[in-house]
Amino acid sequence: MNGNEFGRLFRMTTYGESHGDAMGVTVSGCPAGVELSVEDVQAELDRRKPGQSMITTSRGEPDAVVVNSGVQDGYTTGTPIGMVVQNKDARSGKYEPYVTAPRPSHGDFTYSAKFGTRNWGGGGRSSARETVNWVAAGAVAKQVIEQSDYDIEVKAHVNQIGDVKAPEVTFDDLREHAEENDVRCAHPETAAEMQELIEEYQTEGDSIGGSIYFEAQGVPRGLGAPRFDSVSARLGQALMSVPAATAFEFGLGREAREWTGHDRNENWEFDESESEDPSGDEPRARGDPRPVGNKHGGIQGGITTGEPVYGELTLHAPTSIPKKQRTVDWETGEEKEIQVVGRHDPVLPPRGVPVVEAMLYVTILDFMLLGGRINPDRLDGQAGEYDTPYHPSSPDNE
Amino acid sequence: MNGNEFGRLFRMTTYGESHGDAMGVTVSGCPAGVELSVEDVQAELDRRKPGQSMITTSRGEPDAVVVNSGVQDGYTTGTPIGMVVQNKDARSGKYEPYVTAPRPSHGDFTYSAKFGTRNWGGGGRSSARETVNWVAAGAVAKQVIEQSDYDIEVKAHVNQIGDVKAPEVTFDDLREHAEENDVRCAHPETAAEMQELIEEYQTEGDSIGGSIYFEAQGVPRGLGAPRFDSVSARLGQALMSVPAATAFEFGLGREAREWTGHDRNENWEFDESESEDPSGDEPRARGDPRPVGNKHGGIQGGITTGEPVYGELTLHAPTSIPKKQRTVDWETGEEKEIQVVGRHDPVLPPRGVPVVEAMLYVTILDFMLLGGRINPDRLDGQAGEYDTPYHPSSPDNE
Amino acid sequence: MNGNEFGRLFRMTTYGESHGDAMGVTVSGCPAGVELSVEDVQAELDRRKPGQSMITTSRGEPDAVVVNSGVQDGYTTGTPIGMVVQNKDARSGKYEPYVTAPRPSHGDFTYSAKFGTRNWGGGGRSSARETVNWVAAGAVAKQVIEQSDYDIEVKAHVNQIGDVKAPEVTFDDLREHAEENDVRCAHPETAAEMQELIEEYQTEGDSIGGSIYFEAQGVPRGLGAPRFDSVSARLGQALMSVPAATAFEFGLGREAREWTGHDRNENWEFDESESEDPSGDEPRARGDPRPVGNKHGGIQGGITTGEPVYGELTLHAPTSIPKKQRTVDWETGEEKEIQVVGRHDPVLPPRGVPVVEAMLYVTILDFMLLGGRINPDRLDGQAGEYDTPYHPSSPDNE
Amino acid sequence: MNGNEFGRLFRMTTYGESHGDAMGVTVSGCPAGVELSVEDVQAELDRRKPGQSMITTSRGEPDAVVVNSGVQDGYTTGTPIGMVVQNKDARSGKYEPYVTAPRPSHGDFTYSAKFGTRNWGGGGRSSARETVNWVAAGAVAKQVIEQSDYDIEVKAHVNQIGDVKAPEVTFDDLREHAEENDVRCAHPETAAEMQELIEEYQTEGDSIGGSIYFEAQGVPRGLGAPRFDSVSARLGQALMSVPAATAFEFGLGREAREWTGHDRNENWEFDESESEDPSGDEPRARGDPRPVGNKHGGIQGGITTGEPVYGELTLHAPTSIPKKQRTVDWETGEEKEIQVVGRHDPVLPPRGVPVVEAMLYVTILDFMLLGGRINPDRLDGQAGEYDTPYHPSSPDNE
Repeated sequence: MNGNEFGRLFRMTTYGESHGDAMGVTVSGCPAGVELSVEDVQAELDRRKPGQSMITTSRGEPDAVVVNSGVQDGYTTGTPIGMVVQNKDARSGKYEPYVTAPRPSHGDFTYSAKFGTRNWGGGGRSSARETVNWVAAGAVAKQVIEQSDYDIEVKAHVNQIGDVKAPEVTFDDLREHAEENDVRCAHPETAAEMQELIEEYQTEGDSIGGSIYFEAQGVPRGLGAPRFDSVSARLGQALMSVPAATAFEFGLGREAREWTGHDRNENWEFDESESEDPSGDEPRARGDPRPVGNKHGGIQGGITTGEPVYGELTLHAPTSIPKKQRTVDWETGEEKEIQVVGRHDPVLPPRGVPVVEAMLYVTILDFMLLGGRINPDRLDGQAGEYDTPYHPSSPDNE
Repeated sequence: MNGNEFGRLFRMTTYGESHGDAMGVTVSGCPAGVELSVEDVQAELDRRKPGQSMITTSRGEPDAVVVNSGVQDGYTTGTPIGMVVQNKDARSGKYEPYVTAPRPSHGDFTYSAKFGTRNWGGGGRSSARETVNWVAAGAVAKQVIEQSDYDIEVKAHVNQIGDVKAPEVTFDDLREHAEENDVRCAHPETAAEMQELIEEYQTEGDSIGGSIYFEAQGVPRGLGAPRFDSVSARLGQALMSVPAATAFEFGLGREAREWTGHDRNENWEFDESESEDPSGDEPRARGDPRPVGNKHGGIQGGITTGEPVYGELTLHAPTSIPKKQRTVDWETGEEKEIQVVGRHDPVLPPRGVPVVEAMLYVTILDFMLLGGRINPDRLDGQAGEYDTPYHPSSPDNE
Repeated sequence: MNGNEFGRLFRMTTYGESHGDAMGVTVSGCPAGVELSVEDVQAELDRRKPGQSMITTSRGEPDAVVVNSGVQDGYTTGTPIGMVVQNKDARSGKYEPYVTAPRPSHGDFTYSAKFGTRNWGGGGRSSARETVNWVAAGAVAKQVIEQSDYDIEVKAHVNQIGDVKAPEVTFDDLREHAEENDVRCAHPETAAEMQELIEEYQTEGDSIGGSIYFEAQGVPRGLGAPRFDSVSARLGQALMSVPAATAFEFGLGREAREWTGHDRNENWEFDESESEDPSGDEPRARGDPRPVGNKHGGIQGGITTGEPVYGELTLHAPTSIPKKQRTVDWETGEEKEIQVVGRHDPVLPPRGVPVVEAMLYVTILDFMLLGGRINPDRLDGQAGEYDTPYHPSSPDNE
Repeated sequence: MNGNEFGRLFRMTTYGESHGDAMGVTVSGCPAGVELSVEDVQAELDRRKPGQSMITTSRGEPDAVVVNSGVQDGYTTGTPIGMVVQNKDARSGKYEPYVTAPRPSHGDFTYSAKFGTRNWGGGGRSSARETVNWVAAGAVAKQVIEQSDYDIEVKAHVNQIGDVKAPEVTFDDLREHAEENDVRCAHPETAAEMQELIEEYQTEGDSIGGSIYFEAQGVPRGLGAPRFDSVSARLGQALMSVPAATAFEFGLGREAREWTGHDRNENWEFDESESEDPSGDEPRARGDPRPVGNKHGGIQGGITTGEPVYGELTLHAPTSIPKKQRTVDWETGEEKEIQVVGRHDPVLPPRGVPVVEAMLYVTILDFMLLGGRINPDRLDGQAGEYDTPYHPSSPDNE
């Protein structure tokens, strides 16, 4: 309702402004018994953090996370996990020229129109700095999933910057190459081209748009509650929440409009490779029905088929650019020139990759809990069964 | 959570299967004092109903709506509005061949994988017949908005079928031409081309994809709660819920990936045309700041700017086609040929237009209530003030 | 938010006014595979329905329920269950004198103050007739629970009317005697006294308050999410929703204020009776810890202990009474005498018993789903496993 | 769902364990433009904090709150308010004897049964320390309400300890005397008796139960959404969430069971004292209808009447007592004696008073927002109107 909560059973609630004191996220509904360290979370935050390369903002934020609750002796306890990241390099003063003179295409004016006021330092709450919270929550979700009985893996990479477009890549490419370069494109040659293009715009004082391809492997069939809580509808909400998102697609996406039913439809065949039924019981004679191909993007009728869930998210160019633009000051009535100098990203997708992965982990885990695949109370053991609390006499507790 | 609820303060809860007894929707949170007749709802249902032209299914459903509650003497009372549409031309028997042999690219298998069973008549709950509920709820939302102090109008039309693409049209074109032809394309010549293309595929026993362009005018600035409840995120959820949706875009949409920041950004100027400030008080000297252009699609930082909100929704081709396809029967272990004969749409967007409009009305009204623009309890009058109930001695009540 | 929804995963959404066309309830989140007949629901409605004895209103409502969706060939399909009960004996005309002259202690004025208007026939939406929806939803919840692996049973009876108070009864008494008499008191002698008292007040044109004792046996330990979703907090909401409720207590209830910690506290002992651990694995050497006694009412720290959950709900006297009272007409400015003639209950608890049981079944099932004890998608079988839909070729489907 | 969220439009999300690192609360949905200082929040926390008198625990917690976001230059910005209170005097080590030997009537066993594990230091998440978060959120809600156009005031006091019962007090008594003594009873003589009784039990190593009377004046008529979101149902949930709560009552409460309809019902009269209609427009000739008396507790049909909302909450005796009790160790299979030594409250209501007030402020504000009485986006000004952000050039921002 208030824009700072996402998820149903697995749920994050966030706060914080770009140049405020701290960012914070409460993760509610994380099952007990998940091994979770500060390092697990920090590792993901480091992938998103500013200043990691020449093509990210130079703002100096260590983004060091503190875990205030919900974890005991290295394991989650099932109760809310409160995390805080202090803002260390906030310099809101430099935003003072824009207090009543909105920067082009930012949220400055709309926030003021909604609330009458706004936190104006660096865009305040409208800044993409907020996604630090999402990545922290996503890191928790990832741990839950990785330690579950399911073999689910989410990967994303940058598949287009401006008019430079990567060819299709395999999931193995995503695993191996996506983190190899500053652009986070899993196709090395394209990455080099993208890098060049970005630097060109950066030099001009401009910025450029791009897109992220995402894929989730191992999502079990049968997740999602059509219609309004279908996997596609909830992914739509999740990913359209990403700052600068203007288009969400899954499967054939926008191209589906040009396909005929016969060409797009996928016949069913038996998955004869299955030696036994993974769901238990006796194996079916000829394996499970399986669609021939995955133009459907892993979702049919709003519910997962068991095939990889994949799609794309388009992010427009960063709106903070040094090039001259024009605005008006509503206080003085003046028209004026504006140059948004400072420390800004010339392109969003590279740092958006861990954000998109985080939102996918959160969304998928939420569906896993709602679909009864992972017990909402505890990752291991039997509902109602009690154990000795984790490491009760570890030195930490003395 | 369960897929059949949408909206927060203005909320619909739906039920019903394609060949079940009836479809039903409960509208909760409709303010009191809105003039509402069965005809208002029926008019919208008639736009969506089957059998309206040669390019829609010939299933014979009058889609006559009954209003069970929440309306008294022609006005809403603020309490839930229960509506029911009986299914009259259900023939689930003809779906018996597919009970354990899923139709290609339908929800047959995924529903069975989720629930262990499914209502298999005509796709049961997975059928687009469900949208009859949405259109009924949307008709209520439309009445609330039209009777409010705001001048909001939503229009949609079919802007692409296969590779036939309509040129850009004005909002007046949408108003005048969208309902003139069976395709619901506001550009008459393109409509004719589309019609031809559809008939071609229909004759071949095939179907074709397409897309819907939507636009909402008059949405006041300041609506939306970034991030997860931004207008774009909630529209994303709303429209990705539409059966067969594979891509949601707003503003520049997918193309934004190819634009630079400088080209996409929109300067601010004073809206000097404003004679007085519509929000009350004294007019500002030079009018309000207003972005030059609307490549941003009416949303900046997740919040409305006051410019028209527009975008596109891609719907893949209908999956029910008479052409031969192949499937497997999980009961018998047989592979078999399948021809989905029956009464099916060869293309979805024409009947999708009223569905998209309904979802927009519901979403926008919900934001209007959440943003305090329309009182959640009553459309007219002062909170806490009591009146004589509507027409208390009308003959209807005797 | 709008007052007509209860439950999270298992959820009911209701509509309808006392003298409107129909009452309706949508049950969302019912697992698939539950055997459910109209008779199951009707049986519970019959326990609540008017006109069943001399001490209930004589309004002639058959309360015949129609199931519009969500059930196929006698089994739930996992999709929403839409139910409708037509109002057959509505006579709103006789409420015309009260249109602008509110009846003492009814919701007439407050509904008008909230909405500006109201449905004034028989109290409209404020009438206890609304509970017909709850009982229908509760009947579904009861079936789910009864067909689950858990042996949970809910019983309630009337334990006080005016100053006539029943002694403590056993759960077996509740099972055997609660339905034997018109008062629904499981202690036959007290029931007779209560009946006499009620008739006395009825003859005088007055009414009388009372209370309901409820008990749920077999609720497994470990349910509930403290604080705001603890079992006690959610039961508090559930039962304080019952029309005329003024007090909710569990365990020692109000008396707890007079007990010392030492007297109220319950030591732990081993439940040596346990032959084996019901939760699986190897049995614990000495059984599970178990509190000595149940002054705690089955809930400790907001979570169930496995002991019976019990408590009391107080319902004030019916406000519709034939005795002379005074009111004012806000339209005419007149003060006037009022006699609420018509068909009214002289006491609420007897018909409240099935309502309280229904709310308990709904609340408990919701917690069972949230706690991963019953799979939210399907009652039987393995998540992700597909079967042949129920009785696909039964004659009903031809 | 997960127990750590309360409220719909005005909403708190909490985390923290008794002997963990910190407690935290995120307040979402607070309107912009509310003057709010750390001192406002601290003042309420100081009323609740431990060690304030001889009859509270001696744990040394300053309970110093830090506000991380949502407030700029002394005013709320409409975005989430993140607050953190560090735990300074945590000594979880001393709870080690109870790790697998549950303390009588605590949440030790039930938390372990739910999650398999638990944070066992001082009861972890089950501790009443959690209410520090509620009081912080309540302090925010109180500021919003106090700065609104409404004159709403909430007060509570301790009206019973053991068998010592205070006589009825006026609202002025609550204002003047409730904070004068350590017991927080607004009737000074009774307070002295209560104090004596408490000390007696304290000396014995025992504890005692009690109750809190609460009253909210100035709540406008017309709030609440029957049934499940009626003011009584939501207050029921809010207050039954309070640790140790066993009974919630409003109006006549439990006694209502012994009243006849005629005696309890309240006639309507014109409130001739009203010089003009507070809701605007022209005054009604004879003032508004007003019930004669307030046995109804300010709520009729689930909606507020405008009369004071009042009731009682019973809290059982603290379960942590030095007196000898018995328990079992599930790890060793031993039965053993237990003495819960340490720093514990001998009675709960005195520190519960600010907690109950906080929950009332939160609940009432939430209803005010839902009922359109306070704009959800901003306290002052017109929706959609933008101002200069608060004190943009204050030294704090340099």
